[in-house]
This record gives sequence, structure tokens and C-alpha cells, in this order.
Amino acid sequence: MFKEIADNVRAKTPLIHNITNYVTVNDCANILLACGGSPIMADDENEVEEITSICNGLTINIGTLNSRTISAMFKAGKKANKLNHPVVLDPVGAGASALRTNTALMLLSEVKFDVIRGNISEIKVLASGSGKTSGVDANVDDVVTAENLDTAVAFVKDFARKLGSVVAVTGAIDIVTDGDKAFCIYNGDKDMGKITGTGCQLSCLTAAFVTANPEDKLTATAAAVCAMGLCGELGKKRMTSLDGNSSYRNYIIDAIYNLTGEQLEEGARFEIK
Amino acid sequence: MFKEIADNVRAKTPLIHNITNYVTVNDCANILLACGGSPIMADDENEVEEITSICNGLTINIGTLNSRTISAMFKAGKKANKLNHPVVLDPVGAGASALRTNTALMLLSEVKFDVIRGNISEIKVLASGSGKTSGVDANVDDVVTAENLDTAVAFVKDFARKLGSVVAVTGAIDIVTDGDKAFCIYNGDKDMGKITGTGCQLSCLTAAFVTANPEDKLTATAAAVCAMGLCGELGKKRMTSLDGNSSYRNYIIDAIYNLTGEQLEEGARFEIK
Amino acid sequence: MFKEIADNVRAKTPLIHNITNYVTVNDCANILLACGGSPIMADDENEVEEITSICNGLTINIGTLNSRTISAMFKAGKKANKLNHPVVLDPVGAGASALRTNTALMLLSEVKFDVIRGNISEIKVLASGSGKTSGVDANVDDVVTAENLDTAVAFVKDFARKLGSVVAVTGAIDIVTDGDKAFCIYNGDKDMGKITGTGCQLSCLTAAFVTANPEDKLTATAAAVCAMGLCGELGKKRMTSLDGNSSYRNYIIDAIYNLTGEQLEEGARFEIK
Repeated sequence: MFKEIADNVRAKTPLIHNITNYVTVNDCANILLACGGSPIMADDENEVEEITSICNGLTINIGTLNSRTISAMFKAGKKANKLNHPVVLDPVGAGASALRTNTALMLLSEVKFDVIRGNISEIKVLASGSGKTSGVDANVDDVVTAENLDTAVAFVKDFARKLGSVVAVTGAIDIVTDGDKAFCIYNGDKDMGKITGTGCQLSCLTAAFVTANPEDKLTATAAAVCAMGLCGELGKKRMTSLDGNSSYRNYIIDAIYNLTGEQLEEGARFEIK
Repeated sequence: MFKEIADNVRAKTPLIHNITNYVTVNDCANILLACGGSPIMADDENEVEEITSICNGLTINIGTLNSRTISAMFKAGKKANKLNHPVVLDPVGAGASALRTNTALMLLSEVKFDVIRGNISEIKVLASGSGKTSGVDANVDDVVTAENLDTAVAFVKDFARKLGSVVAVTGAIDIVTDGDKAFCIYNGDKDMGKITGTGCQLSCLTAAFVTANPEDKLTATAAAVCAMGLCGELGKKRMTSLDGNSSYRNYIIDAIYNLTGEQLEEGARFEIK
Repeated sequence: MFKEIADNVRAKTPLIHNITNYVTVNDCANILLACGGSPIMADDENEVEEITSICNGLTINIGTLNSRTISAMFKAGKKANKLNHPVVLDPVGAGASALRTNTALMLLSEVKFDVIRGNISEIKVLASGSGKTSGVDANVDDVVTAENLDTAVAFVKDFARKLGSVVAVTGAIDIVTDGDKAFCIYNGDKDMGKITGTGCQLSCLTAAFVTANPEDKLTATAAAVCAMGLCGELGKKRMTSLDGNSSYRNYIIDAIYNLTGEQLEEGARFEIK
């Protein structure tokens, strides 16, 4: 199942328009190329509709958002909806400021997202329509564990049903659900959180996977989340005692570059709830 | 010939002002340092003329352009012209949106560029004054091959003559011409296209080479294109089975860092048409 | 002494708000994670006060400043002052344009900075209130050497006393002083200057060190400067004949990631004047 999904990305080379933050944008472009997709970054409101039109899918990431790029997000998102292109939202830091929370909520109300991918704190803020987060990482109290997994799955399913979107909550255990079926994913390594932008990268990867597999967005999203986690594991295995988060970043993107559909099929570790 | 050109870059440490996109800007800065140049990035219209004045050359790259940076491009370009500083244009994504096409065409009409470096699709759009491209990579139909090389050379020569500039079209075979003499360059590796920003990096490298060798901009541009391709080959040789595009990116910049004039002289593979 | 300072960073995980340039921002985020801190980047004036409020410290870096981000710098800086959060200024390119010089000087007059970190040329411009620099690197004439060290220390001490701040001038020999006591630091490697952004990274590292050790900002700044230099040395030792500035960048961040308090204590090389 995941094999075909990953193979489709390399076969179809989906062109993904990304409106994203300037912190992790280079890694986002490289991971899109690594998985078999093709990236284009453009955030001026005078060109985003045209750029979205020549692409196949869209990622909107609100990290380092500003008044100029916010208007571009709405224009691109609405255009992508009209063209029936898959759209992924990464609500980076929702809850950390009113600007981020409100922008994310307004995007959710005016643009139809196929997938929303964030950490549990960001998703809680979006689900409740308010609340605070302590930066761009999940609050400690919110973390999904084996103990609270069922409660968390029920919560994420409920939010996904309300939105009619796939919701991917990533962390120690990832939850990917369309409101009906939930993948609980065990791939990944805790040190991925020591690299800036692994979440942003995953959102772009998800856009490529969903765009190349529009007939089953839930499974495509789960495959992207497993791929990122599996490559986090593969990258970790390469690390020597002198390597740190900078080399680890390279190794993960390298692993995505070399990942085969078979590897993903065999390495994916998840249960369905 | 190429040896002296590369040696001049390290001897003169040209300071290059770059107005460029936020996707690949870090790699652009590092490749300028690697070749022996020195980078400064500045894109606010209130400082670009001053910044250009303390520099020796200028790169204008229209990837992720926006209304704020466009005006800075014109100001910096005109200032560089007044100071007789070499100016390189990288028309990233010309043809992908009207904003990019029109900005590139207006820049060509108001600023004198010493070198324009792009892929064949971007250059076709600029030469015809219209047309569409499918993103930031060359259209498949446009690709320069051994079969259509003579036609392509004639086309690029014609455009270079009209502009009175050196035009560098990079791809599987690179064409660098001033309208009279054309270097057809065979260095490089197809997987360089799997790294974001190798084109942007080459444009900055070209600015450094031309700025340190203003008396022969054609040969300096050809030397830069050969250097990038050769380092793409050298970087490729370092790759292990676990490496992918992220490590490859590092290896290419590393190879530029270690490249000697002798190595470039020996490794450059081209014919003149 | 330095051991406890470095250990405090890992124990406290200071959350640092960074308003910084788009050239080196990714490396800044990764080095903050590497040292045990946590980064958040936000530069829109509509959210910077809130973002600063949820953080513990602030870095303001004027590389690639623009009209939009300048106002955000003032708002964030004033808010951090009100909250008694440590604030670090990196006056990148002060002296290279009036916009940069004036912005840095106005920031110094309206925001209380705990630490100012720059190269000697930038600091001279700030101290004199005028003057020119030749880009983002120190002017050759300004370089601190064994011969002019005492004069340089006296100059930096004087500036630090006037500001009531810690001033860190980095170069071949680094000077860190609060106006009374000066650390003259001998760690580092000259090839660190061949990597874009080692200065920017150090400013963010300093913010993390000072934020986790607010009771002794002078020593915390000196520890950060020693840590960066020491990791430059450690990274250099990893380099093979094929490695260049791109791999070197990764190795330095990796070394910060693996740096222990003991290593820093033992490896720091400085004298007090």
C-alpha cells in the first residue's frame, strides 16, 4: 500500500507550490526534490494565483508569517481550492500569538484544507479556537503517550470530522486520521526535534504524497508521516559520535532521497484505531 | 586561461552584492566564500545603492521576488551600471508568472546586464518577450541535447547579440556566448538538478568570476560554468550509497572551496562553436 | 565556571526569540537547538511583542533588515526590556549603509541591550556614531592582533562602560568586557570566516547562554564566545582533504551539539585584562 504511494510520487513528480517560512525553506525545497517532487516557492500576492495554477499541490506554512504573505496565503489557498489541488496547512506556532492563531483559524474558515499537520498543542489551539502554546514545540502537558493515546485519537478524530480534512498530529506517537480511521505511527526518533524544521519538511512531503495520490489522502498522509519517521531512524543509524543535529538534518533528507517504496512498506510501524 | 581566471577570484576577493531569493540564499553566500569572493545580501531600497557602491559586483535573482524587493533590484542595478560594476541576472521562473516575466523584461530594458544566466525555458521567455514555463525547471521540450545543439547555439547567440550581454544557458549541455563565440560545456551531473539552488549558486559564482576578470566576461562566465559543473562531478564522486541531495549540496560547495586553478584548467570540458 | 554556565543552558532550555536575517537564519535555529536552547523566529510587528513575552531572551540581528522588520525590532526590544529579558544585538554591517548604522544607533538609544556582539569595524562605527565599513567583515586595518590588543581592550572597555552593556568583539582574538573586566579569548580558527553566519550564530548562542545565566552576563558571554571558538577548532579537526566550508559549517554546529560543560571548561583559552 505505502509502496505504491511512494512510487507514485517518483513517477508523477508533483510540482508543489509552497508559501512557507524563511527559516526552514531550503530544507523544504530539498526534501521535496529528495522524495521525487519538485518545489516552487512564491509568496507575493501578485503572482501566487498563477504559480498555484501551474503547480499540482500547495503547502501553506504560517511560520514567520507577515501581513504581506498572509494575503498571499488566502489567494493561493482559494485558487488551489478552485482548481481542486490538494492543500496542506502547517499551523506553525498557532497559539504562540494572536496573529498566528487568528490567521490559522481564518485560513481554516476560508480555505478547504485536505490535510492539517501540526504538533498536538497547535492542533488543540485550532480545535478549541483559542489557547496558548509555548513556542513552536508542543507543550509538555500535551504530549501524546501510550497512556493517553486513546483519548488523543478520539480528540483528533473529532476535529478531523468537524473539518472534513485529514489531520496529522506528529510527536512521539503520530496520529493521522480522517475522522473515521486513525493511523497511530511509531516511526521516528526523539532527536528529530533537535533539528529545526523537521515538521515543516514533513508538511511539504505530505503535500507531495497527497498530490501524487489524491484518491486516498488519508493513506498518503500516513505514508508521508511514516516515511519521515523511518528516515529519521535511518539517519540516526548513520550518526557517528562527532555528528550532531546539523549532520542529522542532512542524513534525514539523504535518506528520503534514497528511500524506496519497498523500504517504506517494510519499515512503516503503525496500528490502526 | 581558466586557471588565471579562477586564481584572480582568490587573489582579488571580489565583494558581491546579492539581491536574491530566501530559498537558496545561504548556499549562495557560502559558495561565494568558497570560490574566494565575499558576499553581502541587502534588499531594502533604502540601502541597496549604498551597499552596491561598497561592493565590486551585483547579482540580481528574481526567485521569491516581491513588490518591496523589485524596486530594490532596479535601484541597485542602475547604481551598479553607473559605477561600471558587473551585473548578473538570474531570471528564476521567468515564464511561470506575469510578475516574474515582466520584472525580468523590465530589468533587461532598464539595467544593462553583463551576464544573464538561466535555464533554456527562462531564456526563451526572455528572448520572445512572452511564453510560459512550468515552474523553476526547464520544460522537457526545451532541453538542449547533442541533436539540437547547433540550433540552440544559434538561438542563444542571437539573443546575446541583441542584448549585448553574455548569455549562459545551463542544462545537460551548457551554452555560454557573447553572440559571437559560444562555449558548449559538458561538465556537470544530472543529479545537480535534484539539489535546490545550484543555478542560483552558479549565478553568484559567475558574478564573482566576472567581477574579478572584467576584461573578458565571456571567458570568465564560461570558467564559472565549468567550475560549477566540474565540482558537481567531484562532489558526485564523494557520494556513498547513503548520501543524497543534502550531502551532495555540501560536497559541491566543498569542492568549489578546494578547487584550484589547475584543477579547473584540466577538468573543464567544452568545445567552441 | 564555564562548565556550570554551559550546563545551565541544557538544564533550562531557554526559549530565544530571534529577529534575524534570512541568510543565516536556519543555522541560527540549529545552533540554538544544538546548545540546548529553543529558537523561535518571528518578525512581524503585529506579533513580536507577544512572541517575546512567551520567550526568555531576544536576539536582534540587523542583517537584511528592512522597513517592515525594523519596526518589529524596536517593539520586541522594548517589550523584552519591560519583561527584564536579556537582549543581544548583532549590528551586522553597521557602517556599510546609513540605514544599518542609523538603525543600530537608534536601537542602542531606545533599547537596553545586555550584550552587543560584532566585529571590530562594526563596534567602532557604533562607538563613534559614524564611519564606514567595507561589507559584513572587519576592515583589514581594524583587526585585533597581539600588538594592538591593549589599545583595543581599552577601547572596547570604554564603549562597554558608556553603554552599561557587555560588548563582545570577535575576530582573531576576541574581546568580551563589561567595561571593568575583559576576557581576551584565543579560541577559534581563521577559516570560520569562510563560513557565512558564524557571527550570527554566535550572537544567538550568546543569547541562550546569557538567558540561562542572567546573574553573570559577562562570564556567560565569554563562555559562549569560547564555546563557538572551541567548536570551530573541534570542527576543523574533523575536516578531510575533500571537505570545505559547507561541511565545516555542519561540523561546528555538530560540535556545539556534543559539547559538554567539562569540554568547554578544559578547552577555553583566554586571559583576563
